[in-house]
Amino acid sequence: MISKLIGKILKTKAPICVGLDPMLSYIPAALIDRAFQEKGETPEGAAEAVWLFNKAIVDATCDLIPSVKPQIAMYEQFGIPGLAVYERTVRYCQDKGLIVIGDAKRGDIGSTSAAYAAGHLGKVKIGGGLFQGFGTDMVTVNPYLGTDGVKPFVDACNEFDKGIFVLVKTSNPSSGEFQDRKIDGRPLYELVADKVMEWGAMSMDGEWSNVGAVVGATYPQMIAELRQLMPHTFFLVPGYGAQGGTAEDLKLAFDKDGIGAVVNSSRGIIAAYKKDSYRKFGEEHFAEASRQAVIDMIADIGSVL
Amino acid sequence: MISKLIGKILKTKAPICVGLDPMLSYIPAALIDRAFQEKGETPEGAAEAVWLFNKAIVDATCDLIPSVKPQIAMYEQFGIPGLAVYERTVRYCQDKGLIVIGDAKRGDIGSTSAAYAAGHLGKVKIGGGLFQGFGTDMVTVNPYLGTDGVKPFVDACNEFDKGIFVLVKTSNPSSGEFQDRKIDGRPLYELVADKVMEWGAMSMDGEWSNVGAVVGATYPQMIAELRQLMPHTFFLVPGYGAQGGTAEDLKLAFDKDGIGAVVNSSRGIIAAYKKDSYRKFGEEHFAEASRQAVIDMIADIGSVL
Repeated sequence: MISKLIGKILKTKAPICVGLDPMLSYIPAALIDRAFQEKGETPEGAAEAVWLFNKAIVDATCDLIPSVKPQIAMYEQFGIPGLAVYERTVRYCQDKGLIVIGDAKRGDIGSTSAAYAAGHLGKVKIGGGLFQGFGTDMVTVNPYLGTDGVKPFVDACNEFDKGIFVLVKTSNPSSGEFQDRKIDGRPLYELVADKVMEWGAMSMDGEWSNVGAVVGATYPQMIAELRQLMPHTFFLVPGYGAQGGTAEDLKLAFDKDGIGAVVNSSRGIIAAYKKDSYRKFGEEHFAEASRQAVIDMIADIGSVL
Repeated sequence: MISKLIGKILKTKAPICVGLDPMLSYIPAALIDRAFQEKGETPEGAAEAVWLFNKAIVDATCDLIPSVKPQIAMYEQFGIPGLAVYERTVRYCQDKGLIVIGDAKRGDIGSTSAAYAAGHLGKVKIGGGLFQGFGTDMVTVNPYLGTDGVKPFVDACNEFDKGIFVLVKTSNPSSGEFQDRKIDGRPLYELVADKVMEWGAMSMDGEWSNVGAVVGATYPQMIAELRQLMPHTFFLVPGYGAQGGTAEDLKLAFDKDGIGAVVNSSRGIIAAYKKDSYRKFGEEHFAEASRQAVIDMIADIGSVL
């Protein structure tokens, strides 16, 4: 799977993914009204608004980008109707030729992680048939439970040609509370990185592994260290834009050939029309604002590679 | 919320929860056949089999127990139909007077964790109304992202009178890979325990906090240390029975008054009819076998308190 993602990145010259993390507050009033009129001021109506918003943004940007990263929590908050729109969004993006990275941060033990892996990446056996659950191409995974928790996802990568990104160093302000604490002189996130490489060796796909790492753009020094430490591990880099990470910060996530990372931007793209620099598009042209924000992001990152 | 759980534990004299983690392989063939006939050999059919199985076990045990712990991964593997049965199971158990601990191990950052907290514990604002997502009473939370990731769940505990259990020391064989590593002479799980107490102080409910800890029965020495360290933190203890933890092992999860923990058993209860000791019930009486296994588990744990 990672070779497919890299192929699409090289083709689009865009090492980015658009974070489809729609808060209702990002969605233009006209779309919300339309959805509420159709499905009521209900979870079904909210989910419909999310769907209309996602579809417009995907339609306006899909020719420019290799991948999207829907954040499942933003759908899960609306219960079943929300998750149905998550699934619909995954399928729609795949039909448009995009690689879909489900940001689910799942992780449990043994047979339970295997169930998550089946539901998000693989297939589940029911009677004589195999059925796909959410069917994302890649998914984020939490490593706190150790190998037992991650291995079933690695197995699914091998069985179904999929990929995962394991949390190593996250972009949030308090990520250091545990991740930066020193163990035998090295921060915990480096020990996690060691394990990610060990798991990654079990699922190589060319030069790179299907087992990638999440490394936040907000900690550039750590990105640089991890890039050196993990030459075969692809990075998913959140934190660009709204969270404060700049193109200069994340330059070191890439290798000398300009490969090695996919940078996510969520709010900065999907709510671009609310920013001063894109306000000229107007609320009704929110999707064109998102398209321009994608073009600008590609140029910004391209300028440092 | 934690005072409600403790009240129910004292009333039933049963510091246990039944893990509703139905694998299809646990479900008697007659139930599977009935579900497939009605809904097809499909995810809908599998979900229906899970529902029939859950309902029979809940009906047969609900007068004996204070709480259940459905493992959401086992539902999520079947996609939307599976999650609809998760929701239905949550509601059904609550209607029977049980406290429902959703084993979701969610955790993300800021607004994303807030979305999970709204979806699983709280309510989400849509237009002028507030809507409930999954509506569990308590949920398990992964701490790897630090305070940013956990605080939104604590806020939901306070706003909606709910509870959480944060992973501290998990029951699986590889839990020590990161959790046991020493930082300034103390294992990581103790640093997590320190933070759990800090978060817990923000949501006290009598003597105990709504912010509890997951501590595996398979590491009795660590349970004993954590019980000493965390006098106001209630424990959710997985690993009893099928995973190898014995009543003697988990005695030290309780304080001198015999309070302080709720012990989970999943396979040992819901698939009891497959064990030699309960085979006499026969497959068609699987729910009675589960009832007997609950009675025996209560007696076993009662014998050490």
